[in-house]
Amino acid sequence: MIKIRLVTIHLCPTIMDIPKSFDISPIGYVHSTLKERSGAPRQGWEGAPNARLEIHPAFVQGLDGIKPGQEIWILTWLHESRRSVLKVHPRGEVLNPMMGVFATRSPDRPNPIGLHRAKILSIDGDRWLQVQGLEAIDGTPIIDIKPVLERRGDF
Amino acid sequence: MIKIRLVTIHLCPTIMDIPKSFDISPIGYVHSTLKERSGAPRQGWEGAPNARLEIHPAFVQGLDGIKPGQEIWILTWLHESRRSVLKVHPRGEVLNPMMGVFATRSPDRPNPIGLHRAKILSIDGDRWLQVQGLEAIDGTPIIDIKPVLERRGDF
Repeated sequence: MIKIRLVTIHLCPTIMDIPKSFDISPIGYVHSTLKERSGAPRQGWEGAPNARLEIHPAFVQGLDGIKPGQEIWILTWLHESRRSVLKVHPRGEVLNPMMGVFATRSPDRPNPIGLHRAKILSIDGDRWLQVQGLEAIDGTPIIDIKPVLERRGDF
Repeated sequence: MIKIRLVTIHLCPTIMDIPKSFDISPIGYVHSTLKERSGAPRQGWEGAPNARLEIHPAFVQGLDGIKPGQEIWILTWLHESRRSVLKVHPRGEVLNPMMGVFATRSPDRPNPIGLHRAKILSIDGDRWLQVQGLEAIDGTPIIDIKPVLERRGDF
């Protein structure tokens, strides 16, 4: 009689070793004249309107040092996205061959985080940032703000 | 006798109208020779080593169209960060005056999302991306990948 025993060996940390999910809370919201996803430009430079970022009072201290004229990264939670989508027609054009969502800027993706670069026009009442050219729609949750760094034109 | 009645009027969508938190799941993990946060460079161009991105098999379709030589944004969950921190000494140097975390690239911030720009060197076995110069430490969860767009040198 032959006994076969299956052994699984993990030589490096595996996909299973780390918690499977994390909790994100908005730090504020976008206020914009763009009310619907279907009417929104694909990118900020494609005719997007100026918008106001309302930062929650609990996070206002985190803005200390941000100045008008500065370029920032705004990270948003694209709350109307479909998270089960892995392939799309780029820019929603059916004539464009399907591509993986990570090769596109589609809002439909497993973790629908929007990455927007914008210039701060003014800061009003400590927690309202007026920004130039933002394609996110009204009510979009803001989850992070970072300075654009100088190196390589963008970091 | 005088009666005073307090009325709250909301003229626009308020901070309270939208769900307070969202759930993020990793799409993969960073494999790197950087094992500890204390030894990691602050930015990818500051001597960070090459790294491998392991994408979970469930998300491999989303990579379709990504090519070696391409620059990508890698969004990570900086899992060792302190989320209650709102002000820091930039770059951890106590001589630098305290600033709000949104004015810095500190990993300590309410939603500790890392934003890294890197070049893809090779793609192995469909779901392993070798990338150049990544400052994220070994085991860092990857939550999104986006192409760097050409406009303004970075989008």
